Amino acid sequence: MASIRTHVEGFDRALGGGIPEGSMVLIAGGPGTMKSTFVYSVLHRNAMNGTPGLFVSLEQDAHDVVEKMAQLGMPILPEDKLYVMDMNHFRLALRDKEKGKDWIKILSSLFEEAVRAGGYKLFALDSLEVLYAIVTFKEIRRELFHFVGMLKELGFTAFLVAETPLGEPVREGRPEDFLSDGIILLEQFHVGAMGVQLRMRCVKMRGSHHDRGYFLLDWDGDKFLATKAIQQ
Amino acid sequence: MASIRTHVEGFDRALGGGIPEGSMVLIAGGPGTMKSTFVYSVLHRNAMNGTPGLFVSLEQDAHDVVEKMAQLGMPILPEDKLYVMDMNHFRLALRDKEKGKDWIKILSSLFEEAVRAGGYKLFALDSLEVLYAIVTFKEIRRELFHFVGMLKELGFTAFLVAETPLGEPVREGRPEDFLSDGIILLEQFHVGAMGVQLRMRCVKMRGSHHDRGYFLLDWDGDKFLATKAIQQ
Amino acid sequence: MASIRTHVEGFDRALGGGIPEGSMVLIAGGPGTMKSTFVYSVLHRNAMNGTPGLFVSLEQDAHDVVEKMAQLGMPILPEDKLYVMDMNHFRLALRDKEKGKDWIKILSSLFEEAVRAGGYKLFALDSLEVLYAIVTFKEIRRELFHFVGMLKELGFTAFLVAETPLGEPVREGRPEDFLSDGIILLEQFHVGAMGVQLRMRCVKMRGSHHDRGYFLLDWDGDKFLATKAIQQ
Amino acid sequence: MASIRTHVEGFDRALGGGIPEGSMVLIAGGPGTMKSTFVYSVLHRNAMNGTPGLFVSLEQDAHDVVEKMAQLGMPILPEDKLYVMDMNHFRLALRDKEKGKDWIKILSSLFEEAVRAGGYKLFALDSLEVLYAIVTFKEIRRELFHFVGMLKELGFTAFLVAETPLGEPVREGRPEDFLSDGIILLEQFHVGAMGVQLRMRCVKMRGSHHDRGYFLLDWDGDKFLATKAIQQ
Amino acid sequence: MASIRTHVEGFDRALGGGIPEGSMVLIAGGPGTMKSTFVYSVLHRNAMNGTPGLFVSLEQDAHDVVEKMAQLGMPILPEDKLYVMDMNHFRLALRDKEKGKDWIKILSSLFEEAVRAGGYKLFALDSLEVLYAIVTFKEIRRELFHFVGMLKELGFTAFLVAETPLGEPVREGRPEDFLSDGIILLEQFHVGAMGVQLRMRCVKMRGSHHDRGYFLLDWDGDKFLATKAIQQ
Amino acid sequence: MASIRTHVEGFDRALGGGIPEGSMVLIAGGPGTMKSTFVYSVLHRNAMNGTPGLFVSLEQDAHDVVEKMAQLGMPILPEDKLYVMDMNHFRLALRDKEKGKDWIKILSSLFEEAVRAGGYKLFALDSLEVLYAIVTFKEIRRELFHFVGMLKELGFTAFLVAETPLGEPVREGRPEDFLSDGIILLEQFHVGAMGVQLRMRCVKMRGSHHDRGYFLLDWDGDKFLATKAIQQ
Repeated sequence: MASIRTHVEGFDRALGGGIPEGSMVLIAGGPGTMKSTFVYSVLHRNAMNGTPGLFVSLEQDAHDVVEKMAQLGMPILPEDKLYVMDMNHFRLALRDKEKGKDWIKILSSLFEEAVRAGGYKLFALDSLEVLYAIVTFKEIRRELFHFVGMLKELGFTAFLVAETPLGEPVREGRPEDFLSDGIILLEQFHVGAMGVQLRMRCVKMRGSHHDRGYFLLDWDGDKFLATKAIQQ
Repeated sequence: MASIRTHVEGFDRALGGGIPEGSMVLIAGGPGTMKSTFVYSVLHRNAMNGTPGLFVSLEQDAHDVVEKMAQLGMPILPEDKLYVMDMNHFRLALRDKEKGKDWIKILSSLFEEAVRAGGYKLFALDSLEVLYAIVTFKEIRRELFHFVGMLKELGFTAFLVAETPLGEPVREGRPEDFLSDGIILLEQFHVGAMGVQLRMRCVKMRGSHHDRGYFLLDWDGDKFLATKAIQQ
Repeated sequence: MASIRTHVEGFDRALGGGIPEGSMVLIAGGPGTMKSTFVYSVLHRNAMNGTPGLFVSLEQDAHDVVEKMAQLGMPILPEDKLYVMDMNHFRLALRDKEKGKDWIKILSSLFEEAVRAGGYKLFALDSLEVLYAIVTFKEIRRELFHFVGMLKELGFTAFLVAETPLGEPVREGRPEDFLSDGIILLEQFHVGAMGVQLRMRCVKMRGSHHDRGYFLLDWDGDKFLATKAIQQ
Repeated sequence: MASIRTHVEGFDRALGGGIPEGSMVLIAGGPGTMKSTFVYSVLHRNAMNGTPGLFVSLEQDAHDVVEKMAQLGMPILPEDKLYVMDMNHFRLALRDKEKGKDWIKILSSLFEEAVRAGGYKLFALDSLEVLYAIVTFKEIRRELFHFVGMLKELGFTAFLVAETPLGEPVREGRPEDFLSDGIILLEQFHVGAMGVQLRMRCVKMRGSHHDRGYFLLDWDGDKFLATKAIQQ
Repeated sequence: MASIRTHVEGFDRALGGGIPEGSMVLIAGGPGTMKSTFVYSVLHRNAMNGTPGLFVSLEQDAHDVVEKMAQLGMPILPEDKLYVMDMNHFRLALRDKEKGKDWIKILSSLFEEAVRAGGYKLFALDSLEVLYAIVTFKEIRRELFHFVGMLKELGFTAFLVAETPLGEPVREGRPEDFLSDGIILLEQFHVGAMGVQLRMRCVKMRGSHHDRGYFLLDWDGDKFLATKAIQQ
Repeated sequence: MASIRTHVEGFDRALGGGIPEGSMVLIAGGPGTMKSTFVYSVLHRNAMNGTPGLFVSLEQDAHDVVEKMAQLGMPILPEDKLYVMDMNHFRLALRDKEKGKDWIKILSSLFEEAVRAGGYKLFALDSLEVLYAIVTFKEIRRELFHFVGMLKELGFTAFLVAETPLGEPVREGRPEDFLSDGIILLEQFHVGAMGVQLRMRCVKMRGSHHDRGYFLLDWDGDKFLATKAIQQ
């Protein structure tokens, strides 16, 4: 089984090479933990290495995402390498919504078309919380179950961004947790009385015998660095 | 992308210059953390430097706000520089409410008119809690999503004041958290057995590589001072 | 803007002179923190200095309140100085309740009449919890919002007593918190293994640059003393 | 205003003589904190000193209560001194229940008759939890408010036993808390790794300037002893 | 009043001889605290000493219970000494269920018949949680109140097994707590970083002046040993 | 009563030989605690020793499970030894669903057929959470009660995987807890400031006098090792 590299040095090694292809990975963390930037960087680096990706941004306009990420050091790529979709694309699709079709089927067609046209292999959704805000779930556990199934059938290795409450690294049991193949946790943690830093760890990765410990995370101007802290 | 300065010394530097233009920033904190004064000061200082602002006060009368802020050292400005709206303006608008229009559309027209007339660039709402008290949300996640979208379409850099419970710096996951581009947290924290001081930190700011640590916050008679505490 | 003194020595100084006239102040604390006595003493001292007050007791009979307070050292005053209303006054008013009138309008008329007759400037309600017990709120946030607005329109500087759970100094976010101009917190706190004392602090006071720290609170036989603890 | 002594040595002194006549006092504590025995002993000692009492036991049969208390050292008294009512008395009364009468009116008649016949001055209900189990409250805050009012109109000094969860000395805000004139708290607390003892404190007592600290509580064979612990 | 011995050495002494006859005792503890084995052993030892018991197992088949307990060192006894009923007996009874009869009446008849036939004095139900799973309570507080009353009318000294959440020695206030005459708590507690042991304590026992401290609990092959830990 | 070995060295000894045949054992743990791998390894090792098993994977495709487990060192076995069923098998069965049949009866037929055909003795369900996601429970306690009964009637020794929230070793009281004969807990625990390891313990095992302490758990390339930590 092939692996998808995160291109975060040190962290790929901790995963035993990367994320098993075809996995659905949750990127969970509180506000301000650079979840979007992390996921974007994974798709960006893989796109530059020949694996095209589809980044669905429900939180910001596609144009804003691309521009802000460029300012952080990730140059704009052509759409056949990294295609950023936003709410406007959804609105178009949802306008065609027929009575008998549910939202999962609509998104399914939309993504399927994108895959057929662009051959995208990686998928990112930023974020689950906004999906919950715009879609009215009747039975969240069951619908999310089928949504994840749909992503897998399209052949994606998928990253779903999930926001946890500020200051609460513990996640309450949510359906996306047990439906995921992997969980990567991003946290702000307090250093001394007044400092705050970022750290990450891989909580879960099916089919891999990975390290579960923490890495200090930093953005050095064009990429993430993950440093394994010395045990105190 | 241009930045809006908070004019709080030290803090703008921590943000890498200021708040990216067009952002929606949450000013969160418990009661008594000077959230309103902080936001007012940002609009007041920018107004004096040529960027006019619209301050919507749902908690107090416009007249009281302007007078209390003047007493704290921020002189009254003409309405084309800093326009303070209160409930009375809303009542007028809501009286015109037609059947087919929802509250977001009404506020939208109201703000749009203000922008056309005064060219306001900054926007503040004090506070989300009172908005929740007077508007009956049917689906809070979805409606807030569209409310934020409306503010962005009007071109505002927006500040939404959100009150967290007293003594509880942790925010439970609320829709305004993941819809915001930035979160600035204001806290009262206990010093020794009997003392209490103010501190602030930037938890999140999209498109900026900001410091996440705490600043001691003080009002020196006409402006805020943010001091980076030495790590203990 | 004039101030209303609490006549608690040291504490008025911490408030920068007193409570800004026209404010709505929450007196919050667990059972046994002398909230009622504190508020009564503020109205009593101001009444003796020429500012008449209206004390609405929903928890005890007016007669019991006046007598118990006299025993604690605050002599009975004539009704035009300090008028204590209890449930009996409300029952009368509520009996006249017509279909189209809601409880806020009834209370409003009742208080308005009292103000016209006696010129009362200060107002106290003891307590919000009993108000919640006898009034059926349909939408508590919205109705409380209008209740507070009514008190302000009558020109009152108002004190609302709010009971927090025993042993829980932290208040969960409640609508009265963000609707108030000020919050004064009274707490029992544990000293050593078996002792318990009272302390108070001003959490919030709009338009005032107040001290936020704790004061030890004691009743010396006819008045409160607030001592600023030396920092340990 | 006269006082009712608890006849617990040391504790009456802490209350400034006893409990103000006419008060409604909550006796709160977890399971196994001798709440029932404490309240029974107050009524028993006062009965022996000429103040007759009415003890309503919803948890046990009247006969069992009297016998168990006798075994603990409190001899059986004639009914005109200490009258123990149990569920059987209620069943009788409730059988007569007419359509238009609610449970508060029925209890009211029952207690009123007892007062007229026996001149009882003290009242105890053991416990509120069982009252909640057998009465279907529609609006608990409002009904409890009127229930307490009824007890006061009958001239009782009343003791209501309220059970808090095991191991949780903190009470969540419940309507009986703010409706009471006094709260006496009984707790099991852990001593060392494996020991457990009893302690009590007066949290609240309207119209009294009482001590708020803890007392160790022990039953010495026929009465309670309350020892003021030396501060560690 | 006679006592029922638990035959757990040391523990009977702590109870002042045993459990007062006719009591309803809750045996509460998390999963894996040997609640069932403890209750079974009490009935088994008493049965061998001439007091026959009825053990109702809703969690396992009667045959499995008897056999597993025999393997733990408690030999199988004839049904007139220790009768183990399981779900199959209930199914029979529930099949006869008529419209007008509720589940409490059905169980009542079933147990009454057993008492008439076998003269059982002790009763155990394992567990309340499964009772809740198979019976649909409309008003749990009221129905449990009558269920306990029924057991008492049949003359039983009754043991009800109640499961608390894993790792949470604190019980949230549940109706079975205040309806019980006694509560015996069984806990797993952590010893050092990686060890776990069993301990028990009597939290409550009406009509008895018992020790409230902890005992280490161990099964030595055919009986329980309760050791009073030396205070550290 | 025969035992089923887990083939995790050291741990079987702690269980007194293994898991009593016919038990229903819960394998509980947070995300990333190798619950699926642990259960699969138990069925795999027993299958190689002649006891065939049925592994029901609701979380992943049967093919993915088998392949990922092979990569972890457990070679693919013929279906008569270890049969892995996934959602596709269920879909087939559910398509035949008739009106009068509920989901438990459908699963029952499906498993019964498998037992008749393959003589499977061990059963695993991965996981309860996904079962909850795809089945609409009306009364979860009652239905789970019957589901467990069905598994027992088919003669299975059954393993149910249950996911607990991340970072929360404490399980809130859930129906599967008191319905199970055994509970094995898997946890990630923090070592020093930045490290995370796995540990396990047997919380409960009916009919066995087992060790309750923790074992460090590690996967050595083709099997689990459980090390009893030295007490610190």
